[in-house]
Amino acid sequence: MIGTQSLTDLYVEVQHFHARQMQLLDGGDFPAYAATFTEDGEFTHTPQQPPARGRDGIVTELNRFHERFAEDPVIRRHWFNQLWLEPREDGSVQATYYALVVTTRPERNVTIAPSCVVRDVLVRDGEGNLLVRSRTVDHDRLA
Amino acid sequence: MIGTQSLTDLYVEVQHFHARQMQLLDGGDFPAYAATFTEDGEFTHTPQQPPARGRDGIVTELNRFHERFAEDPVIRRHWFNQLWLEPREDGSVQATYYALVVTTRPERNVTIAPSCVVRDVLVRDGEGNLLVRSRTVDHDRLA
Amino acid sequence: MIGTQSLTDLYVEVQHFHARQMQLLDGGDFPAYAATFTEDGEFTHTPQQPPARGRDGIVTELNRFHERFAEDPVIRRHWFNQLWLEPREDGSVQATYYALVVTTRPERNVTIAPSCVVRDVLVRDGEGNLLVRSRTVDHDRLA
Repeated sequence: MIGTQSLTDLYVEVQHFHARQMQLLDGGDFPAYAATFTEDGEFTHTPQQPPARGRDGIVTELNRFHERFAEDPVIRRHWFNQLWLEPREDGSVQATYYALVVTTRPERNVTIAPSCVVRDVLVRDGEGNLLVRSRTVDHDRLA
Repeated sequence: MIGTQSLTDLYVEVQHFHARQMQLLDGGDFPAYAATFTEDGEFTHTPQQPPARGRDGIVTELNRFHERFAEDPVIRRHWFNQLWLEPREDGSVQATYYALVVTTRPERNVTIAPSCVVRDVLVRDGEGNLLVRSRTVDHDRLA
Repeated sequence: MIGTQSLTDLYVEVQHFHARQMQLLDGGDFPAYAATFTEDGEFTHTPQQPPARGRDGIVTELNRFHERFAEDPVIRRHWFNQLWLEPREDGSVQATYYALVVTTRPERNVTIAPSCVVRDVLVRDGEGNLLVRSRTVDHDRLA
């Protein structure tokens, strides 16, 4: 379905999809976040680690990752920018964009890091809704 | 009028509206900022405080708030991200998005805080232009 | 050609153009970045300095500017926000927007500065592609 859609419609749809998805993640609704992936979706949020696979796998990994905040309460907000879309021959769309994590700790101490480049492969389900088939997060880092 | 508009057109219109509105605010043109609200618009920029009401009330509140910078010169820029729109049955649109305030002080000292979630209720005037009926800013904060 | 295009299409096209352009710049592909300017394009990235002129001139200036990072390895990401477009009578478009430079140094030390306001004059080439005729970056600074 992406093939017949204008770039304008697709670009806005991806922005809107990302906005809802990250508001769900940052709000702590991990099952709803995982439901924005395909059934066999892959999520690699930390380089050099194997991806979390499938919706249950993604929820499990998010719960594991967030254990670090059990004794360190935070509010996290994921910001995206410079979204670049490349439709692919198989009907999927590759999205490449920048991301930053805004973290607020007590006393309104705000840190903004790491800086990341994210690559999504986006597809549609049977009803035409966007889903993430794979998401790979690369952190900016120097040796 | 929002009901017959495509989500694509609406989404871009809100982005463009926000961009102009915040460039006006950050440029210090408080009357022009207030004119982007309805006549009876409400603006709650600090949680737990009563909203500023009406265009004159918003200008008065902005002047009061900015007194703190009289002896502490700053340049402020409001950044928005992850815009999520929900059309409502009465024809208005609820916009939920993230905001950060980028503040530059002398010697190019830049701070970025607080992290906020903002909720707008947007309506149209008789000529079809977007206006804010209410804006509520919630600051990310932990006890 | 901009005259008959909807604001929605134009706005998304500029966002997409900026995204690709800045991914090229941040990826270090200066010739590809320069090719997004007109043949006689002007790029003023630092106030009070004369603009770099022409694609070769822009590449030369970028190489000169980046010499400062030869002994100070960094990854830089340019973020844009609050894009405001004004079509002009001659068919060009003025884009005014905020920019921040996100810089990652070793040990994942991230700094975000300076805060800038950028003004582009955008035109189309014979094939209808957007190009920058001029870009002027103003850094937020107080005396």
